[in-house]
Amino acid sequence: MRNSSLNLFMVFIYCFLQSFSFRWVFLWEKGYQETDAVVSSVTTKVKGVTLTNTSLLGARIWDVADYVIPPQGENTVFVMTNAILTLNQSQGRCPELPDDQTKCEVDNNCVPGYVSTHSSGIQTGKCVPYNSSIKTCEVFAWCPVEDDYHIPKPAFLREAENFTLLVKNNIWYRKFNFSKRNILPTINSTYLKNCIYDAQTDPFCPIFRLGKIVEAAGQDFQEMAVEGGVMALQINWDCNLDRAASHCVPKYSFRRLDNKDSAHTVSPGYNFRFAKYYKNSDGTDSRTLVKAYGIRFDIMVFGKAGKFDVIPTMINIGSGLALFGVATVLCDIFVLYCMKKKYYYREKKYKYVEDYELGADET
Amino acid sequence: MRNSSLNLFMVFIYCFLQSFSFRWVFLWEKGYQETDAVVSSVTTKVKGVTLTNTSLLGARIWDVADYVIPPQGENTVFVMTNAILTLNQSQGRCPELPDDQTKCEVDNNCVPGYVSTHSSGIQTGKCVPYNSSIKTCEVFAWCPVEDDYHIPKPAFLREAENFTLLVKNNIWYRKFNFSKRNILPTINSTYLKNCIYDAQTDPFCPIFRLGKIVEAAGQDFQEMAVEGGVMALQINWDCNLDRAASHCVPKYSFRRLDNKDSAHTVSPGYNFRFAKYYKNSDGTDSRTLVKAYGIRFDIMVFGKAGKFDVIPTMINIGSGLALFGVATVLCDIFVLYCMKKKYYYREKKYKYVEDYELGADET
Amino acid sequence: MRNSSLNLFMVFIYCFLQSFSFRWVFLWEKGYQETDAVVSSVTTKVKGVTLTNTSLLGARIWDVADYVIPPQGENTVFVMTNAILTLNQSQGRCPELPDDQTKCEVDNNCVPGYVSTHSSGIQTGKCVPYNSSIKTCEVFAWCPVEDDYHIPKPAFLREAENFTLLVKNNIWYRKFNFSKRNILPTINSTYLKNCIYDAQTDPFCPIFRLGKIVEAAGQDFQEMAVEGGVMALQINWDCNLDRAASHCVPKYSFRRLDNKDSAHTVSPGYNFRFAKYYKNSDGTDSRTLVKAYGIRFDIMVFGKAGKFDVIPTMINIGSGLALFGVATVLCDIFVLYCMKKKYYYREKKYKYVEDYELGADET
Repeated sequence: MRNSSLNLFMVFIYCFLQSFSFRWVFLWEKGYQETDAVVSSVTTKVKGVTLTNTSLLGARIWDVADYVIPPQGENTVFVMTNAILTLNQSQGRCPELPDDQTKCEVDNNCVPGYVSTHSSGIQTGKCVPYNSSIKTCEVFAWCPVEDDYHIPKPAFLREAENFTLLVKNNIWYRKFNFSKRNILPTINSTYLKNCIYDAQTDPFCPIFRLGKIVEAAGQDFQEMAVEGGVMALQINWDCNLDRAASHCVPKYSFRRLDNKDSAHTVSPGYNFRFAKYYKNSDGTDSRTLVKAYGIRFDIMVFGKAGKFDVIPTMINIGSGLALFGVATVLCDIFVLYCMKKKYYYREKKYKYVEDYELGADET
Repeated sequence: MRNSSLNLFMVFIYCFLQSFSFRWVFLWEKGYQETDAVVSSVTTKVKGVTLTNTSLLGARIWDVADYVIPPQGENTVFVMTNAILTLNQSQGRCPELPDDQTKCEVDNNCVPGYVSTHSSGIQTGKCVPYNSSIKTCEVFAWCPVEDDYHIPKPAFLREAENFTLLVKNNIWYRKFNFSKRNILPTINSTYLKNCIYDAQTDPFCPIFRLGKIVEAAGQDFQEMAVEGGVMALQINWDCNLDRAASHCVPKYSFRRLDNKDSAHTVSPGYNFRFAKYYKNSDGTDSRTLVKAYGIRFDIMVFGKAGKFDVIPTMINIGSGLALFGVATVLCDIFVLYCMKKKYYYREKKYKYVEDYELGADET
Repeated sequence: MRNSSLNLFMVFIYCFLQSFSFRWVFLWEKGYQETDAVVSSVTTKVKGVTLTNTSLLGARIWDVADYVIPPQGENTVFVMTNAILTLNQSQGRCPELPDDQTKCEVDNNCVPGYVSTHSSGIQTGKCVPYNSSIKTCEVFAWCPVEDDYHIPKPAFLREAENFTLLVKNNIWYRKFNFSKRNILPTINSTYLKNCIYDAQTDPFCPIFRLGKIVEAAGQDFQEMAVEGGVMALQINWDCNLDRAASHCVPKYSFRRLDNKDSAHTVSPGYNFRFAKYYKNSDGTDSRTLVKAYGIRFDIMVFGKAGKFDVIPTMINIGSGLALFGVATVLCDIFVLYCMKKKYYYREKKYKYVEDYELGADET
């Protein structure tokens, strides 16, 4: 008897789990809804100006056209926060940056035509003084070569913390032909001129202070500004379209995407090099090389909409009922094979139809 | 009796719905197919030249390298249609643009070092004449500051309506290792040199006239050209791979992505600022600031391919049969609990097995 | 009897298939797991320098800032491998490139104001000598017009084969809050400084030699470098999160995305035009037009993670059991409708309950 109680108990547990999972699929996971993934379009705009004062450049103002690269304002925005500038580079010969490979004593240490992945240019085979104490191999390159050993700290454009980022996001659910944008119809333009996003006080303001984005992801802006990094600005549009459209609102969240741990990575942070090209009065080219460190903001839009539909409802009811059927099967198995009086039950359960193939067609 | 007929009717309706939904899942929704989402690669190329004649620039020709920014031709293409150019900006001091905040009477109205989100630069604390009638606070900025109050209307590069956009799209269904491109094998290169997409006459020509794209989305190109906007060029690759590959063809559609209603939005349309930097003969920097308004074309590729596969077929048959089972269950419930003669039916339905636990093992 | 054996055999086959597909769904397809799609963030960096020596430019060194356009290092990287440079263009009048449409004998052949999709500029209506033997219509354009009939072969920057591409990829499975990056924790920085990806020897090195990528996709780098192309660098992160996180590793693969067959395509390969703008000492603009051919590397990240979850397990058990039910139904159908002694079986199967609606309520 203990055995059968145990079995009955298990069957009970099983039935409970099934009805629970059935309800879960139906109510929590909304098994009665057809779902669709979001289609999204993003435009962005950064605002802010800042002044720097360095011995190299003097007083200089930086505006959007200077520090947003590329300027387009798509769903990825880069804001330069730090930079190593190498002014007036021109094609020519000059000493390579000193490191284990490029330091030399005599010309013989340098191989004409040698170039490695980390070279600034192609070795000419000469050994020339880099400064008063060190000699390095001469290279044919954009000269003078960039010296990026020392990253400015604090960051050059540390004021970028106060810049603002406007995000305009239009979403569309194709199956339901439902579209909406993150600037909600309830928001007026006076509010939009001055608001700044805040999770508590202004959760629907589409204008973000860069410092706040970084902070909300648990990072330190000034630290991140030095070597750069990649941030995600996530917009979540999970919508239940069985309810009013006004309940379908964006939810913002922030996350750091690159790995902070600079010890375990090559080229930590986020940086890239670009150049501004000039034509000198004598017709030769020169350029300003910029190694730009900064924060890339990837605007990621997630979303799933659900709406009642007869097909998934039917399918889920089907699967769900099949689950209930498991109980019957289990009970049968238990009763017919496990219980003491199984022979008795079997006799009652099955109807034996005698097979008299060769006999008469009708009884 | 009325009650039971009603119930029978409901059961009938239910069975009908089930068999309908089963067929729906199987035939309409192709429940017997394994599906895969599209992987896509897009390259684009814009063609066209136009001439502008303004007092500021004189006669000037604009070609692809001038108005496509950035130039790469990926799945997002921006074509400049309007622009506010501020020539020969250099770092210096000049009066700020007049607005409620920057107008002043005396130096005391201006705060040295003040900068707001909408500033062009950093206030020096002086109040200087902007023009003969208005005085504004002086700023340290790229001078002269941009005046973007008046957007050129009609649009500066309104001829962009006649530019063409070539879209090359390769798609791939990973699961089925099926790839195809939007330039169909049946199309010859002579045709491609001269064709222009038209939904009726040339539905497979991959070259689009910009004006037609905008028009097909129900918009007015000249109106959109003034403040810019974002357009989607959608390519749909829904393919039934149980049929011949030649039936798998792209379907183009067009949609405006940004919100037209400029009253309810901040910075309506689509624009961004970029600058061309020059080195003057005295070594100082100057730049031409361009506030570029234009139309961004986002090429969006959608697609789902299906192919017969035994697994989803089995699963859907399973769910579907379970659905049929619902009818049995409902009939039982109805007959055993709702009908007048339920006791009679119950007696016939159930077999009572007497429990004589404590008695003999065999009957 | 033969008929019934056949039917029994079919039922047997069916049951076998079902139990097989059930196991398939459960074990191979991991029907007991909840799944999630990957969210990915990519940064890239190209390294390498090369020297060219042409009559037009003389000896010239090319570094990252010169040949990576745009410079940002997002999930799409373009490396210029070939180029047609048109130096010192300025706005003016000059003969159009000769072709069927633009060749002329007298002024009358040219239509003032005429512009086509393939024009370099707007016709002035004059017929002027293009060279000593050919006359073409004069255009108002950036002059001299670009002559792109002859693509340099071998490619101008053929050394790009040895450039390296560093790919940093962070992935995230939202549902399971699991994140990982392609620079595995087991890899130290010394290794990363010098490693080059190789499918056999270094499958987890995130640094790729461009030549190897192209080769791994079965293409010829030098051939591809001439007209350009689009390559996919695919990273696959299929992870079974029921196992240890260290088993979740990236798998790289390579594929050519554009169509190689240049005969069947318009503008084969991959190229785009951009310009560098200069200000002359007299204040006029000039530009260097670059028609850049090159290889675009699209880093595509795929991935699906699975983890045990009670809901999909229940649903799949449900569907699976329903499948088993099919056997019962089929057996019944067969026995009751197909076998010779069907009437006999029917009598045994069904219990007829007489309906005496109008009679007494109880028997």
